[in-house]
Amino acid sequence: MIERLAVIGVGLIGGSLARALREAHAVGEIVGIDRDEENLRRGVELGVLDRYVVDPREGVQGADVVFVSTPVCSIPTVVAEIAPVLKPGTIVTDGGSVKEFVVAACENLMPEGVHFVGGHPISGTEHSGVQASFATLYQGKRSIVTPTEKTDPAALEKVVEMWRRAGCRVPLMDPVQHDRMLAAISHLPHMVAYSLVNAVDGYDRFGGDLLAFTAGGFRDFTRIASSDPVMWRDIALTNREAILETMDFFAGYLAKLRSLVEAGDAQALEAFFLNSKQKRDAIL
Amino acid sequence: MIERLAVIGVGLIGGSLARALREAHAVGEIVGIDRDEENLRRGVELGVLDRYVVDPREGVQGADVVFVSTPVCSIPTVVAEIAPVLKPGTIVTDGGSVKEFVVAACENLMPEGVHFVGGHPISGTEHSGVQASFATLYQGKRSIVTPTEKTDPAALEKVVEMWRRAGCRVPLMDPVQHDRMLAAISHLPHMVAYSLVNAVDGYDRFGGDLLAFTAGGFRDFTRIASSDPVMWRDIALTNREAILETMDFFAGYLAKLRSLVEAGDAQALEAFFLNSKQKRDAIL
Repeated sequence: MIERLAVIGVGLIGGSLARALREAHAVGEIVGIDRDEENLRRGVELGVLDRYVVDPREGVQGADVVFVSTPVCSIPTVVAEIAPVLKPGTIVTDGGSVKEFVVAACENLMPEGVHFVGGHPISGTEHSGVQASFATLYQGKRSIVTPTEKTDPAALEKVVEMWRRAGCRVPLMDPVQHDRMLAAISHLPHMVAYSLVNAVDGYDRFGGDLLAFTAGGFRDFTRIASSDPVMWRDIALTNREAILETMDFFAGYLAKLRSLVEAGDAQALEAFFLNSKQKRDAIL
Repeated sequence: MIERLAVIGVGLIGGSLARALREAHAVGEIVGIDRDEENLRRGVELGVLDRYVVDPREGVQGADVVFVSTPVCSIPTVVAEIAPVLKPGTIVTDGGSVKEFVVAACENLMPEGVHFVGGHPISGTEHSGVQASFATLYQGKRSIVTPTEKTDPAALEKVVEMWRRAGCRVPLMDPVQHDRMLAAISHLPHMVAYSLVNAVDGYDRFGGDLLAFTAGGFRDFTRIASSDPVMWRDIALTNREAILETMDFFAGYLAKLRSLVEAGDAQALEAFFLNSKQKRDAIL
């Protein structure tokens, strides 16, 4: 399906895609490109990569698909660097968590006959680096692909097929809608979790190390607050409007609950908690 | 160690204590008391209980330890009901998540020679009912015991020993300090998780079922939002001041992060996320 796949940024996302496609016999050769040569060596040792090249322009030579999985802000920079050397027919796609910013920038960078298609696998763990990658990361998950009116239909089909072979369902979505939705279901929860851990860490009402007393609930709840700070810095920078909107929306619910606690309104408190439980249980 | 243990409210917490003490050979007979007779029957079938009695006054007859694990608000009510029939030397203890309210009320209800000791195992899952109980729930966890100047030293020692036999470390703590600490590490996260699920559920910026798109991160993050609404209603009602204080404290961090997102302050955003990651990783 893919003869030569070049993966730029060989971490959890890129490494897991490489592993999944190899297991599915959907790829011939996999070339890794990364600023961190040690990471690339590990990728070859682990069998994730067939070989590696540190220089992106050299690494993408002859690739029919280039997958860019660097932090969001650097995706257009990387694509601008490789664009001039891509052969006609090459498909460039990415795994960035914000799509409007990435797609708008990258579509404009494509030379004649080279196609960009934005994508975002809704999957991950709080761990980073190629050593955290595994072939089943995408199994049964969704990978959203975000075509625009400029998208080449054959390139779109190939990217959709790539994610299917990796194990995903592949809904298509407008980049702006993607960003609004992800703001609510992923970016907002991360902002909340990061704020919560910082708040508990900063809460010294009685001195002592509060965090040491936390149990499983707190640890699960805050798992996403261990996610990569650079990745999340870039998401916060590039999906600013939607994140602000969802943070304000959430703050409204928090204020509502605060008022119920302050009023000691037993019935409304129970209803608030019950609605949450029912909605949460329904997604299990 | 305990000849006859009466458990009032045979759910996850009470059922798991019964199972753990039985496995540790630390208890003779276990009598279950609950308003839900079907639940009690299941408790006997599962081997959690030796027998059950629906009427609390009858059920506590001859017990040397009574463990009350009903929702927080009902603990003093239950204790008031059984107090007159308890034989001298009986120890009454509880598993409630709020201690100042419970301890103050229950200490005053004790007849001569009967002792109340407050306790709170820092452990649980989002599931409820005796069928969710298991013997290892408390293994390696902390169970905080909250003596006051009124507490009988021998009764304190016995309650501490009971939790040790169930597998816990047993720190002692002032009830007020307990409530402040738990507000930060448990009650606040629950308020945040419940608010978050309600907010995402209510966010219809683009229509469609947002929650269906959520991935593992969101599910883990919101697991505690599936907790028992009645239990959490009671916690919100009885630890009101501390919860309001921590909610306001958290809201300050959220507002700080909001201002960083709005300003697009890359360096401060990364530092905010990194501090959270480092603190979270340290408790793993």
